[in-house]
Amino acid sequence: MPIPAPNLTPAFNILRLSHVELIVTDLAKSRAFYVDTLGLQVTDEDSQTIYLRAMEERGHHCLVLKKGDTPQARDLSFKLFDEEHLERAEHFFREKGHPTEWVERPYQSRTFRTRDPHGIPLEFHARMDRLPPIHQQYKLYNGVKPLRIDHFNCFTPDVDASVAFYNQLGFRVTEYTEDEESKRLWAAWMHRKGGVHDMAFTNGTGPRLHHTAFWVPTPLNIIDLLDLMATTGWVKNIERGPGRHGISNAFFLYIRDPDGHRTEIYCSDYQTVDPDLEPIKWDLKDPQRQTLWGAPAPRSWFEEGSLFEGAEPIASTLAATPIVAP
Amino acid sequence: MPIPAPNLTPAFNILRLSHVELIVTDLAKSRAFYVDTLGLQVTDEDSQTIYLRAMEERGHHCLVLKKGDTPQARDLSFKLFDEEHLERAEHFFREKGHPTEWVERPYQSRTFRTRDPHGIPLEFHARMDRLPPIHQQYKLYNGVKPLRIDHFNCFTPDVDASVAFYNQLGFRVTEYTEDEESKRLWAAWMHRKGGVHDMAFTNGTGPRLHHTAFWVPTPLNIIDLLDLMATTGWVKNIERGPGRHGISNAFFLYIRDPDGHRTEIYCSDYQTVDPDLEPIKWDLKDPQRQTLWGAPAPRSWFEEGSLFEGAEPIASTLAATPIVAP
Amino acid sequence: MPIPAPNLTPAFNILRLSHVELIVTDLAKSRAFYVDTLGLQVTDEDSQTIYLRAMEERGHHCLVLKKGDTPQARDLSFKLFDEEHLERAEHFFREKGHPTEWVERPYQSRTFRTRDPHGIPLEFHARMDRLPPIHQQYKLYNGVKPLRIDHFNCFTPDVDASVAFYNQLGFRVTEYTEDEESKRLWAAWMHRKGGVHDMAFTNGTGPRLHHTAFWVPTPLNIIDLLDLMATTGWVKNIERGPGRHGISNAFFLYIRDPDGHRTEIYCSDYQTVDPDLEPIKWDLKDPQRQTLWGAPAPRSWFEEGSLFEGAEPIASTLAATPIVAP
Amino acid sequence: MPIPAPNLTPAFNILRLSHVELIVTDLAKSRAFYVDTLGLQVTDEDSQTIYLRAMEERGHHCLVLKKGDTPQARDLSFKLFDEEHLERAEHFFREKGHPTEWVERPYQSRTFRTRDPHGIPLEFHARMDRLPPIHQQYKLYNGVKPLRIDHFNCFTPDVDASVAFYNQLGFRVTEYTEDEESKRLWAAWMHRKGGVHDMAFTNGTGPRLHHTAFWVPTPLNIIDLLDLMATTGWVKNIERGPGRHGISNAFFLYIRDPDGHRTEIYCSDYQTVDPDLEPIKWDLKDPQRQTLWGAPAPRSWFEEGSLFEGAEPIASTLAATPIVAP
Repeated sequence: MPIPAPNLTPAFNILRLSHVELIVTDLAKSRAFYVDTLGLQVTDEDSQTIYLRAMEERGHHCLVLKKGDTPQARDLSFKLFDEEHLERAEHFFREKGHPTEWVERPYQSRTFRTRDPHGIPLEFHARMDRLPPIHQQYKLYNGVKPLRIDHFNCFTPDVDASVAFYNQLGFRVTEYTEDEESKRLWAAWMHRKGGVHDMAFTNGTGPRLHHTAFWVPTPLNIIDLLDLMATTGWVKNIERGPGRHGISNAFFLYIRDPDGHRTEIYCSDYQTVDPDLEPIKWDLKDPQRQTLWGAPAPRSWFEEGSLFEGAEPIASTLAATPIVAP
Repeated sequence: MPIPAPNLTPAFNILRLSHVELIVTDLAKSRAFYVDTLGLQVTDEDSQTIYLRAMEERGHHCLVLKKGDTPQARDLSFKLFDEEHLERAEHFFREKGHPTEWVERPYQSRTFRTRDPHGIPLEFHARMDRLPPIHQQYKLYNGVKPLRIDHFNCFTPDVDASVAFYNQLGFRVTEYTEDEESKRLWAAWMHRKGGVHDMAFTNGTGPRLHHTAFWVPTPLNIIDLLDLMATTGWVKNIERGPGRHGISNAFFLYIRDPDGHRTEIYCSDYQTVDPDLEPIKWDLKDPQRQTLWGAPAPRSWFEEGSLFEGAEPIASTLAATPIVAP
Repeated sequence: MPIPAPNLTPAFNILRLSHVELIVTDLAKSRAFYVDTLGLQVTDEDSQTIYLRAMEERGHHCLVLKKGDTPQARDLSFKLFDEEHLERAEHFFREKGHPTEWVERPYQSRTFRTRDPHGIPLEFHARMDRLPPIHQQYKLYNGVKPLRIDHFNCFTPDVDASVAFYNQLGFRVTEYTEDEESKRLWAAWMHRKGGVHDMAFTNGTGPRLHHTAFWVPTPLNIIDLLDLMATTGWVKNIERGPGRHGISNAFFLYIRDPDGHRTEIYCSDYQTVDPDLEPIKWDLKDPQRQTLWGAPAPRSWFEEGSLFEGAEPIASTLAATPIVAP
Repeated sequence: MPIPAPNLTPAFNILRLSHVELIVTDLAKSRAFYVDTLGLQVTDEDSQTIYLRAMEERGHHCLVLKKGDTPQARDLSFKLFDEEHLERAEHFFREKGHPTEWVERPYQSRTFRTRDPHGIPLEFHARMDRLPPIHQQYKLYNGVKPLRIDHFNCFTPDVDASVAFYNQLGFRVTEYTEDEESKRLWAAWMHRKGGVHDMAFTNGTGPRLHHTAFWVPTPLNIIDLLDLMATTGWVKNIERGPGRHGISNAFFLYIRDPDGHRTEIYCSDYQTVDPDLEPIKWDLKDPQRQTLWGAPAPRSWFEEGSLFEGAEPIASTLAATPIVAP
């Protein structure tokens, strides 16, 4: 199935990904990971919840950690242009038969919740509490010095279907991997905010959250984080990298939090604001797609992910096998 | 005069700055500067003209050098969402009494030309020839390894008026400097594409082009360029920097081409896609506004700029004096 | 066997490693690797030989490529303090029954050749032709921008014996890996010039040359080289890395030349001029010894190396198995 | 006067510079500067004294801050090869009529004190308490992440005489600036440990300590420090830089501590272990000598320095004027 033509006039305007809520089993351990090691800034916390933002963000949170019994990903959240677009979005999902409910979220104006066709829980809002800038308070920069949340990546059992649906929402494909034999999509990267992606889909048992990514400016940030993790008890939480993806050209590192939730630290992608930007196609058989420098990814990277609350994953019918470390 | 509320529903959609044409007196010398030293890529050239693009760009050109008798800046060019927006834009300028004419530009679909209230020549188009990606052809990376054109900065005799006009066009203010006494704007940074600016205005005799900026990923690119320029006969073309602007947080370098046209090499700004992003206000008396690290700019940086073709500059009535190197 | 006390009054003064000669089967291919890709500078060449130096070196050569039928490493060469020390050195080796011969080497004052106890061919000289500095000719910097040769690393079937011998020559151990069970050395790093090593030994079938290393200032040099190799047909020549060694703290990359000769690109070691510097001991079972960040090395890295001309390798009797990628 | 031939057989072996003691008027403020901002590690402290080391050093201290009424530099300290060389050194200075006295210094074996011909107080020792390595405890890295003390730079009223004297001590000139008219030295850089310098001399009223330098691996360390200082109240303590020296090729930053003592943060010099290394000569009139990129130094940098305890500075008779910022 070819990738769809970009939908340049979606029914409502999603500005960008906003945040995700993760259920973690030990809030102190997660704090040690996300705050003391990665360097995210706490904007609020109590015994059940920690709100975090990255250094250049002015919205109240890009990551919410919530204590729970079982590690899970909750909703992927997106910021809309304004309240009118929020209405239009709710209407859109309701019309199409998706479940929608208005929910209360601290520090956000009204928010509604729905699910995508595979069951990924999604939330939308138009306004979040704004905080004073801290991006020039260099005393606060620690760990990997994360500047902003960059994207979500999800396993889906049917990448073609996921791409078709998010295309309706106005997400535009920047790069994709096709299985040459079946002509089905293996993976796709889709954006709203002008970078390579706000949302990516990878073939596999899904829906599951593959990772959440944070943007940093240089590979040296990532090397500093590796050195820090390697010497403060987190060496086993380093999963893959550092390396350069062929796809997106990003310099990357994948790490796992204490509950196994995966984080990517990410730099070096490119600007994609042109509506006539041509998607770049990669062959599933090209190993440089995964890592430009040739090193294969570990098997865990292809197989493990976070379950979404309330969504039962199903196996993909696309049996193609990616290249993994032997 | 306070900065205007952002205009979130402009009459037409400017995606981003596109390119500028500079009149240069010695095409070979300019080629040595922009191609051999900065590392821009030639996409076409003849005895009168050189077309250049930066490493991640797929449009045909971001800079056009044209041989002429007198150094000049020609039109600042912007890319619109589509042909319909081009029509709307032409209508908008015509209705407001600005001169408009449809012009032929190689490698672009139809283009129209107008002027802003101070006489800055502007061009608009919706499509430019697309070229294959070269952003992973690392063999081609040279000089400062420029990734993309980032913004224009212009002198204007009335920053308040310029901001009001470009606000109508949908440009949103991200940061600004106010003269505390007169309450008039000294400078403003305005964006369309989601960075700190596509267009900035600085108080001074104008209209004149202060500089065109190219984006690079790390300060080390800039240090490499300084080392290269310093040892290949270009040391006198280094005007200011390296340094960090308080405004925009950018790490910067200002250099002058063989005709005196100013280029900024720029990294480290931040993402601005939120329509509710609060503009950051700076006091004209705060020297860290200019350079976070405290060093003043040289006088030439405040006084010199490129004339625009066909626009007679007039003096500013705002007499406040910036902080310059003694 | 414990590592020996440092010999602070050796019979002659070795200043530093100087250069190595490699037999390569296709001079043009090797030139493409070492000159066009790594960025070493040609100081002389003809149809049989290429002489190379790195950017901050003033000696005529740090690497000599010689055309031959079979890939081989020839002599490891060292620079002595002066001609008197050269006499003393020749006397030392002759007295101990090592073969010694005076040889003619272009661009060097008189040179003698000998072998270490395992048969590694060694050469010593006191003066080499000096060239004008090029370290500020930034136009010449290309590829990984190598600054200087840093060290040799050799397989030896008896690390304890190699360390004991080179200790007599005044090499001082900075770090070492011990097999906890046999109490035998697995590997050792020994220096003369004030860095972590001029010469290292690794347990394995030997003598064989494991690699020659070049020093660069930052990890970004290495990332640039990876990007370049990955996109100019050299991706399969990338063997291991990038990573940080626990031992030496070096940020590293291992690559193979067209004949399989291994090069390390190396940065971030530390200064070791103090004679009372305490060697750092690592346990063979500690995987962070190899890679601080936890990734194991590929099997080829432990098993493959360049044969030395005229030296028949024998197997090591130390059977301990290092940690390799599965 | 030409620079003297290197003295390759000095009467005793100075390994490297070791440390300096600075008299500061407010220990808490100085701690905020050197520890909280620069990132040096405290190895001992009480109400009168703070001992500091840099990240890769294993000796107990490279900087000693002592509370006093008047800012002053005390002794410049050097580490000798062993106790026998200490005896030889004491003998050397005594024979030449320099004052010598054995002194007690905490954490050091016996130490003697003397003065150079211009009155600079010098101390020599062979052993200092050794501390466990911390260079892989990345959690401790802060501020500029200083790796080691690199060199001292002193004003002297007679650079020729200073160079002649330190040449006797075995210091070797790597680079120097000559006044073309008088043929007198304007400045010289002299080393023992294999880098560009352990000790430099600059023409001016002296003896005074111009600065103490710390070595960092990349320019980004320096940019991080600038950002930190600029946003934590230290902006006025930034004196010069960042820039690249023509001499030594070092990327530099000069900052002043709360008492005005100057520190250089320094990276990118080169290896100098060859005894036949040719000194590089610079013309006093060449502005790239000071800053490769062309920016002149501020007047304070040429005129201000720390007085040495017990040494009355006298004016230089070499009247040549360096290039300063207008």
